[in-house]
Amino acid sequence: MNYVLYYSPGAASMAVHWMLIELGVPFEARLIDIDTGAQKTDDYRRLNPAGRVPTLVVDGVPHGESAALLMLLAERHPDAALAPAPGTPQRAEWLETMVYLANTFLPAMRDWFYADTDGDPADAHAVRALARRRIEGALDRLDSRLADGRRYLVGDALGTADFLAVVLMRWTRNMPRPATTWPHLSLYINRMRRRPSFIELNVREGLVDWQSAP
Amino acid sequence: MNYVLYYSPGAASMAVHWMLIELGVPFEARLIDIDTGAQKTDDYRRLNPAGRVPTLVVDGVPHGESAALLMLLAERHPDAALAPAPGTPQRAEWLETMVYLANTFLPAMRDWFYADTDGDPADAHAVRALARRRIEGALDRLDSRLADGRRYLVGDALGTADFLAVVLMRWTRNMPRPATTWPHLSLYINRMRRRPSFIELNVREGLVDWQSAP
Ligand SMILES: N[C@@H](CCC(=O)N[C@@H](CS)C(=O)NCC(=O)O)C(=O)O
Ligand SMILES: N[C@@H](CCC(=O)N[C@@H](CS)C(=O)NCC(=O)O)C(=O)O
Repeated sequence: MNYVLYYSPGAASMAVHWMLIELGVPFEARLIDIDTGAQKTDDYRRLNPAGRVPTLVVDGVPHGESAALLMLLAERHPDAALAPAPGTPQRAEWLETMVYLANTFLPAMRDWFYADTDGDPADAHAVRALARRRIEGALDRLDSRLADGRRYLVGDALGTADFLAVVLMRWTRNMPRPATTWPHLSLYINRMRRRPSFIELNVREGLVDWQSAP
Repeated sequence: MNYVLYYSPGAASMAVHWMLIELGVPFEARLIDIDTGAQKTDDYRRLNPAGRVPTLVVDGVPHGESAALLMLLAERHPDAALAPAPGTPQRAEWLETMVYLANTFLPAMRDWFYADTDGDPADAHAVRALARRRIEGALDRLDSRLADGRRYLVGDALGTADFLAVVLMRWTRNMPRPATTWPHLSLYINRMRRRPSFIELNVREGLVDWQSAP
């Protein structure tokens, strides 16, 4: 087996899990339940020193960072066309979008969920206030990008940016302003949630909420 | 001219500027001095809606996100070998390192410098405390990576990760623990600072500090 994915239900690993299902390639999925602290064991830290999910073992070598793994998988499976090919006009926009999601939206979500444990709990309120502002700013920006009616984030074709963005948007479901309350994001999310691969993903991860419009 | 770089001295644009000099390709550099707020004008926001530097105009289309621009340039100039080629064993590590720098170290530096203006100034102290913890954590991790004597971050060859990492490390120079106080980072930084392209970069951006060991 070329790919072994270490995942926790609903975590950042979900984007990689989704892409593996969409690709239809063989892989083994191993549960690392972050609710029980399984990501902090010595065994898992040998694969992922930061103690985070996902880890994807590719040809025997473990790698982390969900955005990087999505990009790697796109490159290893060019026939699936889940990223614009190198040299095409959409390539720069794809790279920019992947990095934008990875370094703006994702770290703000980390702050939102982990302010208490990544930092001093006394400071968590302040960290979360800035995180919320940044998350809503990212949602504004993604919503206006979809305002022209495009169905996918990059190049009008399903791709890695959609897997990452939808998983990030899912994380906002219990925030004061969930992603589904933005008009174009709402249409986009509902379309993406109807994909057979997303339904299958939820079954495999044992997730039941956020499957259809509230 | 295929490339037009909008930069501010010493900003995130510095990594892209460095790579363009190292590549030896023709480009035009246009100054957007963030100390005077030049990044907030309507004209510049048409190129970069977030009002950030860098922007690189590639074949007439403006793009942002320094990590993405470095990756794009590596792909457009494969002969320079500033990234492991697709399909090589180092490719996954390169992608992982680029995303790691972009989504861990870089956003924490943003928090360190912009906590007052990105968020509520009353919360800035708390945001900066977490940022410092994360920056020092990233420096610990990069230092231990270099502990085996490797000269560059990825694949023992100069590449995009080095341009981004050194610019991020430069930003720590007035922090309580500058990157140069880590033993392996200190050797690495001094080696990188001696490169003719780095010296030329500082001349072109009009920078005089952090050029040699203190
Ligand atoms: N930058 C990483 C972030 C991964 C991450 O923060 N994962 C979270 C779950 S969404 C995690 O592992 N949390 C457990 C912990 O930090 O203890 C990526 O994109 O893969
Ligand atoms: N994620 C962006 C960050 C760029 C960024 O934050 N640039 C700063 C300078 S280092 C900037 O433009 N600051 C001016 C401002 O935010 O007003 C990138 O890597 O290009």
